[in-house]
Amino acid sequence: MNAIVIGGDGFIGSHIVDQLLELGHKVTVFDRCPYQVTRNLEHQKGAINVISGEFANKIDLKNALYGNDIVFHCVWTSTPISSWNNPYLEVDENIRLSIQLADAAVESGIKKIVFPSSGGTVYGAQHNSRVNESCLPSPFSPYGIAKLAVEHFLNYYRKSANLACDIYRIGNAFGPRQPVSSPQGVISVWMSKILSGEKIIVYGDHETLRDYVYVKDISYLMAYSLADLNESATVNIGSGRGTSIIELLDVFKRVVDIPFQYEIKSRRASDNKSFILDSSLILSYFPNFSFSNLEEKIRETWQYFREEK
Amino acid sequence: MNAIVIGGDGFIGSHIVDQLLELGHKVTVFDRCPYQVTRNLEHQKGAINVISGEFANKIDLKNALYGNDIVFHCVWTSTPISSWNNPYLEVDENIRLSIQLADAAVESGIKKIVFPSSGGTVYGAQHNSRVNESCLPSPFSPYGIAKLAVEHFLNYYRKSANLACDIYRIGNAFGPRQPVSSPQGVISVWMSKILSGEKIIVYGDHETLRDYVYVKDISYLMAYSLADLNESATVNIGSGRGTSIIELLDVFKRVVDIPFQYEIKSRRASDNKSFILDSSLILSYFPNFSFSNLEEKIRETWQYFREEK
Repeated sequence: MNAIVIGGDGFIGSHIVDQLLELGHKVTVFDRCPYQVTRNLEHQKGAINVISGEFANKIDLKNALYGNDIVFHCVWTSTPISSWNNPYLEVDENIRLSIQLADAAVESGIKKIVFPSSGGTVYGAQHNSRVNESCLPSPFSPYGIAKLAVEHFLNYYRKSANLACDIYRIGNAFGPRQPVSSPQGVISVWMSKILSGEKIIVYGDHETLRDYVYVKDISYLMAYSLADLNESATVNIGSGRGTSIIELLDVFKRVVDIPFQYEIKSRRASDNKSFILDSSLILSYFPNFSFSNLEEKIRETWQYFREEK
Repeated sequence: MNAIVIGGDGFIGSHIVDQLLELGHKVTVFDRCPYQVTRNLEHQKGAINVISGEFANKIDLKNALYGNDIVFHCVWTSTPISSWNNPYLEVDENIRLSIQLADAAVESGIKKIVFPSSGGTVYGAQHNSRVNESCLPSPFSPYGIAKLAVEHFLNYYRKSANLACDIYRIGNAFGPRQPVSSPQGVISVWMSKILSGEKIIVYGDHETLRDYVYVKDISYLMAYSLADLNESATVNIGSGRGTSIIELLDVFKRVVDIPFQYEIKSRRASDNKSFILDSSLILSYFPNFSFSNLEEKIRETWQYFREEK
């Protein structure tokens, strides 16, 4: 199958590229990549077709999309925290350009679009138990509002233009290649700060539960989208385990082999109190799969960040 | 109380103005109104303060909002049908400018924003029984997607800037002053066509149920927002009665006193199959209220359109 990953040189995108190649597909990466130099895909050089282009440029996009069967939409220009003071950016960039990508996909004969959405921000804060896909979304950060709006616009393209779409509502992704310049994901933020000798800030308490999910588990499960290019689905990807921010700190104390300082503060307005995903739906398609051990993967991620530094 | 109605010269907006004046409030109307000439509020001349301005101009908006306690957001530039081929307009105009209005309201010291959303398009097509406010929204027209996104952005302003918001998910509104130039609402569309001697097209069958609600019932119930400017709510306003498109045609045959032709066709892609709203929540605040008789109000609306023509 011919697959293109928009933002394929990024965090989740590059792991999807690895997975697609592992499964034997022909992969094109569309990203900024000046002079074809990638940040995260040096190890796949030669195995992938790299197209440098601007996500905002529909002509660039269409040229790249043509000839592919499926597109993975892995570009997003904000984080939940950065979105908090800039709702306009969500509208002008993330919602608008996602619509444009869907449009370009339809015009280029793509059969399916795959969108990594956000479990934590789309469902919002009102849920006390594990949330499944039929729970009422209640986003309150502009980031989550925009992710949900894009989900809905993809459903519109499914209905109006027969573009199949798979939407993955993902937990707190972590792992190698997570960017530290625009911080999203407490694990990479903490590791980056520790490596810079900065104190880490722990926002929350024993009740601030998150569903941390290893990025390679995510890319493995997202291969579900390749099974049938005519089917559409909205599915959670989370470990189903709640880890409090204090437990995470304890893991760091065991894993991180250099001294670090921390300070515990209250949750920020943009933070959920707690959320854990019910991933029964996607797991029903992968009966032999089990999620990675959190501490083990945090240890691997720490090794990665140490070596990168 | 000082209230401002943005788009107050329009269909629902002008009925809200009537209701606010009835209740003794001080009302400002912000609309295009060239030379202060209104379309729908000639009968209130002298009783209202009319400000001509462009909804897209934040400075105009802020100047108008200042000194008011509550703002009613009654501007929308599309219909479900017109949105079907123009999702970008929903993003660039309706979502973006609604955010700008909320921003301007916060900066002007407004306490609450009131937003007429859309029951029919926000809940989408998957519901078989009456939908209440805890049902899962599943919009599929760009119009409905944008209405829901604006609901969510208003919740963001509630949380981030303490701007209270009331959201009304309204059924198929009908009544005097519904515009016929940008057709929304089958009742006004049919009346307009009949008066022009055109054949009316009946899209659907006995199973194409809609929840028709008289505009003056809507404006009466929306006065709920004045009770407490610090409280926020999302509530349905629909009659709770399902009327099929064929039953509606039968009502027209009884009410319309001139001959007309019709043709029955299948539903369009942008149409819901069926929807009826459960309005128990808002009715619990108005124990003595009952919704108007449909046939009687269609008769009144027909008289209005005949006289206007």
